[in-house]
Amino acid sequence: MRLLLIQAFSLPPDSPGAYRRMDGATKEEALMNHAAVAPLLAGVEWDLHPGALAPHGNWPVETREEFAIAGVARLPIVREACESGTYDAIVLLGGGDPGFMEAREIGRRHRIPVTANAHAQMHVAMTLGNRFSFVDISETHNAHMAELVVRYRMAHACASIRNIDHPLPRPAYPAGRVTLKGEAEKHAAGERSGMLEAAVEAAIAAITEDGAEVILLGCSAAFWLREPLQTRLLEAGWDVPVLEGYRCAIAMAKMLVGLGVDASGITFPADPPRHKRRRRFV
Amino acid sequence: MRLLLIQAFSLPPDSPGAYRRMDGATKEEALMNHAAVAPLLAGVEWDLHPGALAPHGNWPVETREEFAIAGVARLPIVREACESGTYDAIVLLGGGDPGFMEAREIGRRHRIPVTANAHAQMHVAMTLGNRFSFVDISETHNAHMAELVVRYRMAHACASIRNIDHPLPRPAYPAGRVTLKGEAEKHAAGERSGMLEAAVEAAIAAITEDGAEVILLGCSAAFWLREPLQTRLLEAGWDVPVLEGYRCAIAMAKMLVGLGVDASGITFPADPPRHKRRRRFV
Amino acid sequence: MRLLLIQAFSLPPDSPGAYRRMDGATKEEALMNHAAVAPLLAGVEWDLHPGALAPHGNWPVETREEFAIAGVARLPIVREACESGTYDAIVLLGGGDPGFMEAREIGRRHRIPVTANAHAQMHVAMTLGNRFSFVDISETHNAHMAELVVRYRMAHACASIRNIDHPLPRPAYPAGRVTLKGEAEKHAAGERSGMLEAAVEAAIAAITEDGAEVILLGCSAAFWLREPLQTRLLEAGWDVPVLEGYRCAIAMAKMLVGLGVDASGITFPADPPRHKRRRRFV
Amino acid sequence: MRLLLIQAFSLPPDSPGAYRRMDGATKEEALMNHAAVAPLLAGVEWDLHPGALAPHGNWPVETREEFAIAGVARLPIVREACESGTYDAIVLLGGGDPGFMEAREIGRRHRIPVTANAHAQMHVAMTLGNRFSFVDISETHNAHMAELVVRYRMAHACASIRNIDHPLPRPAYPAGRVTLKGEAEKHAAGERSGMLEAAVEAAIAAITEDGAEVILLGCSAAFWLREPLQTRLLEAGWDVPVLEGYRCAIAMAKMLVGLGVDASGITFPADPPRHKRRRRFV
Amino acid sequence: MRLLLIQAFSLPPDSPGAYRRMDGATKEEALMNHAAVAPLLAGVEWDLHPGALAPHGNWPVETREEFAIAGVARLPIVREACESGTYDAIVLLGGGDPGFMEAREIGRRHRIPVTANAHAQMHVAMTLGNRFSFVDISETHNAHMAELVVRYRMAHACASIRNIDHPLPRPAYPAGRVTLKGEAEKHAAGERSGMLEAAVEAAIAAITEDGAEVILLGCSAAFWLREPLQTRLLEAGWDVPVLEGYRCAIAMAKMLVGLGVDASGITFPADPPRHKRRRRFV
Amino acid sequence: MRLLLIQAFSLPPDSPGAYRRMDGATKEEALMNHAAVAPLLAGVEWDLHPGALAPHGNWPVETREEFAIAGVARLPIVREACESGTYDAIVLLGGGDPGFMEAREIGRRHRIPVTANAHAQMHVAMTLGNRFSFVDISETHNAHMAELVVRYRMAHACASIRNIDHPLPRPAYPAGRVTLKGEAEKHAAGERSGMLEAAVEAAIAAITEDGAEVILLGCSAAFWLREPLQTRLLEAGWDVPVLEGYRCAIAMAKMLVGLGVDASGITFPADPPRHKRRRRFV
Repeated sequence: MRLLLIQAFSLPPDSPGAYRRMDGATKEEALMNHAAVAPLLAGVEWDLHPGALAPHGNWPVETREEFAIAGVARLPIVREACESGTYDAIVLLGGGDPGFMEAREIGRRHRIPVTANAHAQMHVAMTLGNRFSFVDISETHNAHMAELVVRYRMAHACASIRNIDHPLPRPAYPAGRVTLKGEAEKHAAGERSGMLEAAVEAAIAAITEDGAEVILLGCSAAFWLREPLQTRLLEAGWDVPVLEGYRCAIAMAKMLVGLGVDASGITFPADPPRHKRRRRFV
Repeated sequence: MRLLLIQAFSLPPDSPGAYRRMDGATKEEALMNHAAVAPLLAGVEWDLHPGALAPHGNWPVETREEFAIAGVARLPIVREACESGTYDAIVLLGGGDPGFMEAREIGRRHRIPVTANAHAQMHVAMTLGNRFSFVDISETHNAHMAELVVRYRMAHACASIRNIDHPLPRPAYPAGRVTLKGEAEKHAAGERSGMLEAAVEAAIAAITEDGAEVILLGCSAAFWLREPLQTRLLEAGWDVPVLEGYRCAIAMAKMLVGLGVDASGITFPADPPRHKRRRRFV
Repeated sequence: MRLLLIQAFSLPPDSPGAYRRMDGATKEEALMNHAAVAPLLAGVEWDLHPGALAPHGNWPVETREEFAIAGVARLPIVREACESGTYDAIVLLGGGDPGFMEAREIGRRHRIPVTANAHAQMHVAMTLGNRFSFVDISETHNAHMAELVVRYRMAHACASIRNIDHPLPRPAYPAGRVTLKGEAEKHAAGERSGMLEAAVEAAIAAITEDGAEVILLGCSAAFWLREPLQTRLLEAGWDVPVLEGYRCAIAMAKMLVGLGVDASGITFPADPPRHKRRRRFV
Repeated sequence: MRLLLIQAFSLPPDSPGAYRRMDGATKEEALMNHAAVAPLLAGVEWDLHPGALAPHGNWPVETREEFAIAGVARLPIVREACESGTYDAIVLLGGGDPGFMEAREIGRRHRIPVTANAHAQMHVAMTLGNRFSFVDISETHNAHMAELVVRYRMAHACASIRNIDHPLPRPAYPAGRVTLKGEAEKHAAGERSGMLEAAVEAAIAAITEDGAEVILLGCSAAFWLREPLQTRLLEAGWDVPVLEGYRCAIAMAKMLVGLGVDASGITFPADPPRHKRRRRFV
Repeated sequence: MRLLLIQAFSLPPDSPGAYRRMDGATKEEALMNHAAVAPLLAGVEWDLHPGALAPHGNWPVETREEFAIAGVARLPIVREACESGTYDAIVLLGGGDPGFMEAREIGRRHRIPVTANAHAQMHVAMTLGNRFSFVDISETHNAHMAELVVRYRMAHACASIRNIDHPLPRPAYPAGRVTLKGEAEKHAAGERSGMLEAAVEAAIAAITEDGAEVILLGCSAAFWLREPLQTRLLEAGWDVPVLEGYRCAIAMAKMLVGLGVDASGITFPADPPRHKRRRRFV
Repeated sequence: MRLLLIQAFSLPPDSPGAYRRMDGATKEEALMNHAAVAPLLAGVEWDLHPGALAPHGNWPVETREEFAIAGVARLPIVREACESGTYDAIVLLGGGDPGFMEAREIGRRHRIPVTANAHAQMHVAMTLGNRFSFVDISETHNAHMAELVVRYRMAHACASIRNIDHPLPRPAYPAGRVTLKGEAEKHAAGERSGMLEAAVEAAIAAITEDGAEVILLGCSAAFWLREPLQTRLLEAGWDVPVLEGYRCAIAMAKMLVGLGVDASGITFPADPPRHKRRRRFV
């Protein structure tokens, strides 16, 4: 099985924050949280594409506009990968799934399944419980995730999107505003991470107040929270699965390849369409 | 009241079909179906922007990918218009609303309402009846419209999307495939239009089989159908409103300007957000 | 454009409270909050009908029974206005929309759109955000508003109805019970209004706890809250639109007249019906 | 157990059609389909009130306006009955439930349950299967029934409203238009009834095309169809319950009296309300 | 009218807790809360079947597995009762309705209605208000009740399931864990019952926080709470009906017998089915 | 990875039909459609349990009662497998998922995921399109599948259950009644299968009339249809995925094992529960 993992975007070398292009790095170095993902990639041939250089600026995407721009910028990479005949499936990295629906449309024409982080998390969650909540980083990112939930027709299953207020760094913020930058490193160094503490509080609120039965993580820069958040929840007596997007998207890609399916030709008509229906149902 | 109308995109001079850039034309000449729209623009100062030159090719957009590309290409025009301080509202032309949600996000930051064709039609429809159907041009366009209905949280109100199988011309089609090209002209010349006949049949099926109480038109290249379709339905005994996007989007823009509102700051947070909620509801 | 605004009802001269018949007053004096509404009526020819003299008693309507009685009493006024050929649209005043659905049925037969306060607010709200809450005056009025939300098929969009417990005066209350009487005057005089304070608290609870993205006002005797509540919310960091019914109903009436539509002949069949369907969808 | 059955309205002696006031008749003679209802009334003390003399005209109610007028006219009868202390429950006759929600509000204040024909049918249906269809008489009546389904929050359970196009007689119809008048008599005389044939066809369509699992009858002037329609469906192989409103409303009234309940004080607050909630859920 | 009441199961003599088989007892002694149920059984010929001896162990059922086992064990009793020709209806006792859907399938073949405690409570609740909450005994029982709500297609009407944490005794609990055992007796003796206090708190939270308009009781071992909980709620100003399962199931059985209906042959096809549809609706 | 596949049940040697216990057969021989399933089991250690000997009779299960009986009979096998420590996941075979929810409850306590045929198909379908239809064998089986859809909270995604009227053989049928027996063999022998023809017709109706975007198969005795139905649909121009339960349940089990998850401890509380929530959401 051959998978191509495509980063959401890459930032220019002058970018101060995360998602910086890692020229010269191995794919393992360049893949966030590789150690946690590695078991799922065992026995899989995989490549990592750094994503398109971000057209919107040198900071990570967070607004609707930035997601749309990053999504469109990623599509030529998807098309090229599909046309190469090299891959059995494509895994779109990035918590907010930029370009996912359009990438599926492209993949469909080559019978290649395409998976993405939020979409895969929601579908895996539905096999584990009846209702999920996203623990997510900021007001702006929350608004985007809410729209994804609606687009993916998962509104009935979404208990809430909980805001832990650790946004991605962006120029609009005043100096000194707390962001998620450095939080993973603090936690790795054994220090207290305010972001993790906020996530624990948010997850417990989601479970007890909103009815969440599974916890998802909204932003890929927060996916490192999965293990520590799972541990903390268990310690607090909440035996609730915590998912993140990389593993879910890879696992779903493997499942779809195993089943030999990619997507419905009704949902994503061919170009030109081979069939015609008189009536489409929403 | 000052409105800016922005075309969905413009096609290069070598384009064989509709939506071609009309350099040198007056705004009235360049605005499709101007005669029908003019009464709503009486007393309004308005400009027409030709839209971005289509980045995807020299044919009209119809796939999800093409809509996404056209949408992103239109955003700089929206931003510039907002920053100019010249307009009270922006009306996005084009049946499939490319870039609408992102444009609203931009508009919100300048307190400028942004309206679009499908969105406005659906909202006007809900003030007239309980359920609408789109009469729409093709399988591929239908699939896009279905997603718009979901994104705009209107699935409960959508009786159906009826396919009249008169697509926009595109290179993927075999030579001689019937498209919508020339149909408006045939009708204007007093000839029988197969597109109009198909629309009449589809609308009646939507009313009698699907429960439609209002008929909408999906593609701006089909908006010319409004008057003849309305007439034909009345003649057939069906007193059902037929709407199209230009007038609805203009009328809604005027209403929002009149009320002094643009959008909710919860739905579209500022950059940076001024508030923080612990929980977002989908 | 010629509009007729019809009060919900008028109370006999012996009535102790609001809604008293203002014989001899100009239409501007008789229209509550005229100054705020005036800009929307600029360029419009409008009349104000005082409504039917309340058949139920000398206090404002608040129970289901009183709303039904007032609704029926208003219908002859609507019919006469439609038959007069004098008006392009009819605007029903009164927060709880007495007689609205029946008035639309009458209006439909004359191709005259009829709008009402709660209905118009909900529809305008849906163009601004995804979910609204009513800030409303009392348990009994809340129960009526909840039924309107259901009748108008807006339950999916209603985050909550928040009770500020400042009811209309009615004989059933013990002497000294706080009502909304005098609150607008207190606020206008620069004094602290408990009703406004309760509305601020209720609106913030609706936004933070219930997921409201737009705030509506339930009772026309509370519509004066719009400006001060909007100001207070903005001061508290909540950039959330606050609407009220008079302006929304007038703006919607103008929009419908501009579009030349009134209602669907399926939703409101003619008398006798001109069409027959085998199946009606709810 | 003492029940009061209240007719929807009574028509003046000059009325050409059904629902005429039957002065001098026994209650058994005046109650439509008494023979079928009698077993449910065995052991019950019951009175029949002829209803208010129709204020709208001398023909049966069918439009929204007529239902509203008849509903309000019935309320004083309900109040008087409640205040008399004579009855354990009130049964509102008439297929379209005029005045039902307001009558429940009145009944609540005396702890007296009030039931009605459409409401009771829907609730009984939900104990028998998952989805019901109404077999109903006309476009206009269908539109009213559709609104009742929504008001009673039963839209999820309503497969369809099937129109058999045998309306009540009304002046708006051209002479000779087929109505339901005389159909019951034809059937009783052993003749073929077009109305019954249409009902059989409509019911089978509801079952096979719409997913109905229980059949309800919309108009009390069609309740006589219950037995013959049930028989015909069974003969055609469809073992589907057919209900009508009189029996369902009486049976539900008896059940509620037996349980000692009438309605929730949250749904129908007292006057004045005894409790206050900060938030009402729709 | 002849009814058979069937206990959910009976426990062997060595069982420490409730539901023990009461050999030698009269049916009145063996029926929990007989005094409260007796008025509904006046004039009814009724028998009480002790239920099948519990196959799963000597403690009351609470897990999904235990409910499934108890449900299957009860079916032969249902079949035998149906085949005996002795009964007009069967009432399944037990809060979690073990075997209910299967028992209805059996009953249907004999035209005998079968009712059950949770199902009947939910349906009665819907005739009284718009939304119910269960006050229920434990996490595990809550999970079962939540599934019943879904199976009975009542999710739209369920405000919440409130947990009072007084489970049935079971071996898995550590010694000394508070259960519901002895609580009814304490209350009957005039002592303070922690279970009742928890129920009052849970019911008020359901009303004020969750929007409940009617309160139901989840477990038959908690049905004794009905009267004291109703009294306490009224004392606290909440005029909200409290139901329990025995009376509701009996009252519904009487109503169905009175109407001569049992269930739809579409919902529960015959064996072999007498009809065939091309399409089944969920 | 070690999987245990458990048959739904096995029939005694005297059984005339399918599902007969295959004593002495290899696991490959005993697993229906093994050739098609084999690729998914490559690299997996797997065992096949023949299931419990059917307690209900010597024919395959099809009624609600039979499914319940078979489900309970399978639980001891699940428990023993979990306690053995031998398996990473358990795959329940059988189209109607007997005992699935209870088996998950057992599996949860050992952190072992349990998957089943209908459940897995529905979840895989949702990753491929927006709406699925079941092509299913008979009225009675359809009724069971409809309940599964509701229990699994998939009603929003189910376009229809299409009945091909080729039931499992059962004693209740008259001699000579067409069943599914022998159809797979006919097809394998290159003969025309009426069952396949009916499935093609049903699937196309589901796609064109009901809005299905993915086709599922309801009964495991119809799973052989997957390949020929897929081929026929493609030949007819419908590029719509056809799934069946064995592969979906195995693929989902592998995915869950890969992700190290089994189910939520909220959905399936431990025994005794380790946590307590005040409120459960349905």
